[in-house]
Parts: sequence; structure tokens; C-alpha cells
Amino acid sequence: MAGAAAQGATAYVTLEPCAHHGATPPCCEALAKAGIARVVAPIADSDPRVDGQGFGYLRQHGVEVTTGVGAEQALSDHAGFFLRIAQGRPWVTLKLAMTVDGRIATATGESQWITGPEARRAVHALRASHDAVMVGAGTARADDPQLTVRGFGDRRQPVRVVVSRLIDVPLMSQLAQSARDVPLWLCHGPEARSELKTAWEGVGARLLPCQISGGRIDPLAMLRALGSEGLTRVFCEGGGQLAASLLLHDLVDELQVFTAGMALGAEGYPGIGALGVARLDEAPRFDLVDVVGAGADIRHVWRRRQSA
Amino acid sequence: MAGAAAQGATAYVTLEPCAHHGATPPCCEALAKAGIARVVAPIADSDPRVDGQGFGYLRQHGVEVTTGVGAEQALSDHAGFFLRIAQGRPWVTLKLAMTVDGRIATATGESQWITGPEARRAVHALRASHDAVMVGAGTARADDPQLTVRGFGDRRQPVRVVVSRLIDVPLMSQLAQSARDVPLWLCHGPEARSELKTAWEGVGARLLPCQISGGRIDPLAMLRALGSEGLTRVFCEGGGQLAASLLLHDLVDELQVFTAGMALGAEGYPGIGALGVARLDEAPRFDLVDVVGAGADIRHVWRRRQSA
Ligand SMILES: NC(=O)c1ccc[n+]([C@@H]2O[C@H](COP(=O)([O-])OP(=O)(O)OC[C@H]3O[C@@H](n4cnc5c(N)ncnc54)[C@H](OP(=O)(O)O)[C@@H]3O)[C@@H](O)[C@H]2O)c1
Ligand SMILES: NC(=O)c1ccc[n+]([C@@H]2O[C@H](COP(=O)([O-])OP(=O)(O)OC[C@H]3O[C@@H](n4cnc5c(N)ncnc54)[C@H](OP(=O)(O)O)[C@@H]3O)[C@@H](O)[C@H]2O)c1
Repeated sequence: MAGAAAQGATAYVTLEPCAHHGATPPCCEALAKAGIARVVAPIADSDPRVDGQGFGYLRQHGVEVTTGVGAEQALSDHAGFFLRIAQGRPWVTLKLAMTVDGRIATATGESQWITGPEARRAVHALRASHDAVMVGAGTARADDPQLTVRGFGDRRQPVRVVVSRLIDVPLMSQLAQSARDVPLWLCHGPEARSELKTAWEGVGARLLPCQISGGRIDPLAMLRALGSEGLTRVFCEGGGQLAASLLLHDLVDELQVFTAGMALGAEGYPGIGALGVARLDEAPRFDLVDVVGAGADIRHVWRRRQSA
Repeated sequence: MAGAAAQGATAYVTLEPCAHHGATPPCCEALAKAGIARVVAPIADSDPRVDGQGFGYLRQHGVEVTTGVGAEQALSDHAGFFLRIAQGRPWVTLKLAMTVDGRIATATGESQWITGPEARRAVHALRASHDAVMVGAGTARADDPQLTVRGFGDRRQPVRVVVSRLIDVPLMSQLAQSARDVPLWLCHGPEARSELKTAWEGVGARLLPCQISGGRIDPLAMLRALGSEGLTRVFCEGGGQLAASLLLHDLVDELQVFTAGMALGAEGYPGIGALGVARLDEAPRFDLVDVVGAGADIRHVWRRRQSA
């Protein structure tokens, strides 16, 4: 796109340019052909089809290559990409918008709004930085959400994913009604009724059959299915049961928590459902990444602790 | 104590010097007599026995008086003092040391340690900045705590207060065993057995009979009893039931929350017990004062929202 301006120029990229034919021809060839004199790239691409071959091609074609600059930040930004290569599943960020005592709704299901406008705007920005927004069927049924990115101009929307064994979500929901405009994927079990599947395909949804384990959609199998469809970063917005299932299977890479200055008490709906943790040393643990104020609320970010 | 050095000197104080005979003679007289030339005091003392008379006395005796400097900070520091004058009860700070999902113990009661050493040290500093440390009988029974300030050298210890209708706390507990060294007050109901009362007085505890309401010690009556004993700041360390009772009666002035990067799930013991809140607009609300990292945990401080 830069045309003549590319001649002798330096290109800054966040990852080793690819060396293989995918949806597009190899990037390293395009860079060399365009006349780029120098490429600054922080890290190599561990995909076996690249893995140093991109840098090799560039050097062989007289392009200077500088690596290592901002490597830590690049590794963090591409964490989902590397996770998919290594484990075949996308990065999972779990959002919790809670009261001080860890509740996401009253006993009667009222949850709008626990957090304020700044936190909600931050949630939309988080949606925008992921490939998909995912919720459990309970949340889809209770809140009738749209799960779109709003307030950031006209932009590509992340895929919306709903997890429901029997596709038990109303066809009159906002999700169903908007499925032609914004992608909607349904992760369902093998027993979902075929009339329902046909109806959902009719409104524009895409069906992803997933394995069952313990009467529930198996979360790792489901994430692998999403990964093989090209998703590298999934933003899970609850509810408590889906959050618990992901935590239980050690599949939550990051927590994005928004805490409001409010208490709902023990009858409130828990942000994380039953985990079956009896002893403290069995609990899933996270390391603090960041904590800031967000309007009247606070925002804290945690990453999965790597087991020693 | 300054002797000759007081002659012509400036005294900086955080509150109007008192004008009445209490445990000591009036402070304003002592200042004038010592030869102080100028007193800098941020705010007047609203106690009807002072209320401008301290400043008046000083001016009449040729002492220059400057007020208003750091008034906001002084009001905040003396909040407990003013609360006791206005409402006859001490300031109540509620501590919550919780997991990300608002749990203070596993279902089996394991709670040591959810937060790390930095947070625990901050808790000891908080104890030291209050006149009393208070817990419910459930916590006294489950954790056998000492509730003393440790790690800050040899210093005056805050009073330890346990709330138990029938004084249902073991006499072999650490609290009982240390009652001769560090004050231990028991807030109990009128039906507490007299043999038990005698036994506790025997180990050195002090008994504070309190009114009952709804089968529980009435929290406002209890706080007023503590206030009339001279306490201006009470640090409540839980557990969930006592915390809920104080919140329900709108008696929590400040929340000091420590959140650890750990999840215990819905079976974990809730940091705040049942509140009977059905709708979000009935929930007790707090305004953010501060949020910081505390070792591996975060610390967030909230103050009771003043109703409009
Ligand atoms: N404040 C907030 O940020 C927030 C966010 C989200 C939700 N909420 C509140 O949370 C409540 C809903 O939460 P919830 O816990 O009931 O529902 P949920 O976690 O959203 O959904 C649970 C449902 O998902 C389906 N599912 C399929 N596979 C699963 C698996 N492996 N693990 C878990 N679930 C699986 C099941 O339905 P099928 O039988 O259909 O498979 C299950 O009943 C609502 O009251 C909502 O308002 C609040
Ligand atoms: N992580 C932490 O920071 C932390 C802190 C504290 C506690 N904990 C955990 O929390 C658990 C104990 O909590 P809990 O909720 O069971 O007990 P709690 O709140 O400490 O004590 C409740 C008891 O206090 C007495 N009480 C008297 N008047 C009351 C009133 N107005 N309101 C409430 N209680 C009143 C009652 O006992 P009587 O019948 O004797 O009157 C009641 O059963 C333990 O597992 C402990 O490990 C954790």
C-alpha cells in the first residue's frame, strides 16, 4: 500500500513475517519485493511453518533484520496466538463485574447495572480486543444481551458465542434477531434437536457441535473447536456457571474484574459458581497484572499463575 | 513537657484545644500558661463543652490562633470522634480479606492464609490505628485468633471485642488466655449464664451487657455501649454474619478490602452474610477512597455513601 514510499524504508512489525502460503502469499516475500530495507520484529513466530524461515528469507534477500525490541510486550500481545499453536485453544479472558462481596446479580436476577459507565465502556473496549465474546445460556436467557461492541465507531464486531447443550435460548432474543448482522455461533451438544438447529441456521447463526462430559459441554473440547475456526482470543462474560466450568478445567488465562462499591450479601448471585474446592491449596490462583480506578468502580487484572 | 522551649513557640494541633475539665484540666489553659504564642488548629471541636470556647480562651489570653489549615484531612482523621459526639457511636471500619469471588474461607472453614504477608501487615497497622478490634463469636470459635497488633514494637494494644449473645467462646481460647495482658471485652445478651460471666471475669475479661433485637445482639445498641466506654474507632474483622448485621443497620463507615488472586467458588464461605437485598437500589453503597497493590494482593478502601 505504501507504493514508492516503501523503497529503502523500515517496517516495524510485532511478529516474524510469515514464510508460508496461507490465506495470503508469504509476508516475507511481499516485504522484500516492496523494497523494504530493514524489518524490526520483536519475536519469532513459533508456528512450524515459519519458525525463523521468515527472518531467513528476508536476510537472504538483503533485508536487514532487527529482533528483540519490545519482545516481552509482543509475547504478551500474541499470547492467544502462541497458545493456539501450543495447545490448540484460544486465550480466555474472564470478565467479572461484581459487587465488593463477589455478586453479579441479586437473588431475583437483577444485574443492570452493578458497575458504572466507565467500567461498561472498558468492557466494550475489551470486547473489541478479542475475536469472540462468549456467554453461558443462563446469561443469554436472563439478560437477553446483544454482546456487541458499541461506542467505538463502525468497526468489525467480534463473533458472539453462546454455550447451550440443547440450544435452550429464545429465538426471539436480541442475539437471534441480530445474527445476520453480527456473527452468532452456538456451541451445542450432540442431542440438540434438529428442528432447533434448522431454525437457528435460518436466522443466520452458525452451529458448532461439541463433545459432552459430565452432562455439560466439555469446555476444552469447545475451546479447541473455536480455535480450529481461527479464534485466538475469547472474552467470556459469564455467568457464574460457565466461569466455574472454565476455572475448574484451568482454562482461564486472564481475569478482568470490575468491582463496584456495593454489597448484595450471601443471597446475591455468585460471580463464580461451585468449584468443589475444599482446601485453599486447591484453589485456582492468579497473579496481579494491574489495578486502577474506573470511574466509581475499580478494575483489577490478573493472569493465571504458571504452576511451578 | 517542652519547658522553657514553649515560650513564644507555635503549637500545631489537629483539633481545637479543649475548654473543659475532663480526665485532665483544659488544654487551652495549659497552652496559654506554658507561654505558647501561636496555636495552629485546623478545625473546631463540635463537643458542646468546647465548640469555639477553646479558641476564645486562647485569643483572650493573647495567643494568636490560626484555623482552617488541613481542615479536610483533620475532619477525616477525627471522623470517629465527631461521629461519637453526633450519634453516640464509634466509627466502624469493616475489614474483608477475600478471594476475587468474595470468599473468606473454604466450605470447611480454612481461611489462613487467603491474603499474603503485606496485606496481613497492613491489617496489623489498621488494628493499631483503631481503639478496638471486634469479631463475631463465629470467627472467635473457628479461628481462635489473638487480635493483637504484632510487628510494630512495644505499643498500647487496642481493646479486643467479641460479640456473643450467650458468651459461647471457649475459655481455653487464646483470647481468654491473654485477657490479663490485652483488654478483652465481651458484648453479650441479658441471658448469658452467670457462672460463665464469673468465669470470664475471672480470666480478666470485661463484660458489656447489650440489648437483643431479633434474637441477636442489637448492633447499634452495642456500638453505643462501646462509644460510652470511650471508643471512637472500631475495626471489625468479620466474620460474614457480624459484617452483614452491621451493613444491614447502615453502621459500616469504611470498608478496607484486601483481595487475593484466588477463587474459591460458590461453596466458599461468604465475606458478607445474608442481607435480604432483593433489588440493586436497596444495596448498601460505598464510594471509592483508594486502591493500591499490596504485595500479591490488592487493597481497596471505600467509605459509606452519604444518602442525598
Ligand atoms: N454482572 C455481570 O457481569 C453478569 C454477567 C453475566 C451474567 N450475570 C448474571 O448471571 C446470571 C446467569 O448466570 P448462570 O451461572 O445462571 O448462567 P451461565 O453460566 O451464563 O450459563 C449456564 C448455562 O450454560 C450452559 N452450559 C453448557 N455447558 C456448560 C458448561 N460446561 N459449564 C457451564 N454451563 C454450561 C448450561 O445451560 P444449557 O442447559 O442450556 O446447556 C448452563 O445452565 C444471570 O442472573 C445474569 O444476570 C451477570
Ligand atoms: N478471611 C478473613 O478475613 C476472615 C475473617 C473473619 C472470619 N473468617 C471466617 O469466617 C467464618 C466465621 O464467620 P461467621 O459468619 O460464621 O461468624 P461471625 O460473624 O464471626 O460470628 C457470628 C456469630 O456472632 C454472634 N452474634 C451476636 N450478635 C450478632 C449480630 N448482631 N450479628 C451477627 N452475629 C452476631 C452469633 O453468635 P452467638 O450465638 O454466640 O451470639 C453469631 O453466630 C470462619 O470460618 C472464619 O475463618 C475469615
